[in-house]
Amino acid sequence: MPREITAYSNPLVKRVRNLRDKRHRKDEGLFLAEGLRILAEAEETGVLPLWLFFAADGAGHPIARRLIAKVEAAGGEAIETTRDILHKLSGKDNPQTVIGVYAQPETGLERIDRSAAPIWLVAQSLRDPGNLGTMLRTGDAVGAGGLILIDDCVDPFSVEAVRASMGAMFTQRIAQARWPDFLAWLRAGPGLLVATHLEASVDYRVPDYGKPTFLLIGNEAQGLPADYAAAADVRVKIPMRGKADSLNAAVACAVMAYEVLGRIDGVRPPASRETA
Amino acid sequence: MPREITAYSNPLVKRVRNLRDKRHRKDEGLFLAEGLRILAEAEETGVLPLWLFFAADGAGHPIARRLIAKVEAAGGEAIETTRDILHKLSGKDNPQTVIGVYAQPETGLERIDRSAAPIWLVAQSLRDPGNLGTMLRTGDAVGAGGLILIDDCVDPFSVEAVRASMGAMFTQRIAQARWPDFLAWLRAGPGLLVATHLEASVDYRVPDYGKPTFLLIGNEAQGLPADYAAAADVRVKIPMRGKADSLNAAVACAVMAYEVLGRIDGVRPPASRETA
Repeated sequence: MPREITAYSNPLVKRVRNLRDKRHRKDEGLFLAEGLRILAEAEETGVLPLWLFFAADGAGHPIARRLIAKVEAAGGEAIETTRDILHKLSGKDNPQTVIGVYAQPETGLERIDRSAAPIWLVAQSLRDPGNLGTMLRTGDAVGAGGLILIDDCVDPFSVEAVRASMGAMFTQRIAQARWPDFLAWLRAGPGLLVATHLEASVDYRVPDYGKPTFLLIGNEAQGLPADYAAAADVRVKIPMRGKADSLNAAVACAVMAYEVLGRIDGVRPPASRETA
Repeated sequence: MPREITAYSNPLVKRVRNLRDKRHRKDEGLFLAEGLRILAEAEETGVLPLWLFFAADGAGHPIARRLIAKVEAAGGEAIETTRDILHKLSGKDNPQTVIGVYAQPETGLERIDRSAAPIWLVAQSLRDPGNLGTMLRTGDAVGAGGLILIDDCVDPFSVEAVRASMGAMFTQRIAQARWPDFLAWLRAGPGLLVATHLEASVDYRVPDYGKPTFLLIGNEAQGLPADYAAAADVRVKIPMRGKADSLNAAVACAVMAYEVLGRIDGVRPPASRETA
């Protein structure tokens, strides 16, 4: 039977509330995800929350009922609470009716099985949690295996990143590594490293892409460091026809990822000429 | 000579500070843009702020000096101020060294000259200002003419949208219209209306696209209403290989826009088969 918590001062409420802070997330090895849709997606991939908070008036939903039963069967705890406390936990004015507290997966490179997918996304010094979550969502959409975060990226377990991922947080592998360690790991097996680089001379629609392709996207403001780009097997640029010199990082990642997907699928050949 | 404002209580500071609120922006017909890079881009397209606030320690930058001179020559006002006041105006912890106050352009459909560009972006009930700004940025990148906002979209002149547009706010036309008015306007001239729709059966790489192509993207949560999609000339879907059923709206817009650009440029033919 779910227990009920209605007091702001409850220690578990305080503890979970603190997970909106990166240091607490790291110390606890936990993170938050919100909403029936995302929690159901996690469940489908076999991931259940350790704690499941739900609003009394949302408990009747069939997905909520199933989640509550599964969490309790797995030894987790389902907790009935108020909308006010859900608001406090999520920080949103209109909180979802369920919030789950999940264990952070390990993010070592050694957990990545590169043969499991034809595309892997790699982001360097990414700053914006929305971009990070959006890249996970795009990765899921193109059948990528996961997102490898290089150097000092924003926390992939932040509430904003999890929200923007729309559940892809649970379907995509996440790894974190310093650049030299990533490069050593990459070169120890098959894989084509493709860098998007503003100074590249090759249109992104022209090269052949192999399996697996690792798509490397640089920091939002600076782009990739020149030596990182130089270490890639291929450097490509996306045509820019206007005044601006770059795309949003998550947008550039998606345009590249769909190009590689079309090529890997054999839906279309490389472009015969460049225009960029 | 620039005047100096150092008091929070200054009426102009209060007035400009209020422009972070939609109602005030609408009443005043003004909006804010921040940062040398974006203000310089506006200037290059011939748009100058009515007021230019700059930090005393940032006034030495050649771009800042040029902006100050141009704003004063055009009858606007350049105002030297403190970092604290710039922080108050921008709402950012690390404010840019310049902030401009601009007149909102007219957003009637009658201002759109469809023959001016081969691609136009159309968004319906867009909710997220970051997505809106990112679409403007993508529109600039693909050489689109502008963004047409259908029904109740988030304010394109919000600080977040302007920030995400990275200057494209000033290079792209922005129009606002109700759906029936847009449709009547569209059908009064040439143009192919292409809807991205989850229930479409045609892979986005297969159809022919014409000039101009109007790319219609639906609301982040609901997608396009069925009758809106039905009114389009072509309904396409982007392949989804994972668990998720949709892409981020700005990402979907960009993947489509680059597909259309490649086709319009003649860089590549339509795909010969579908995979979605």
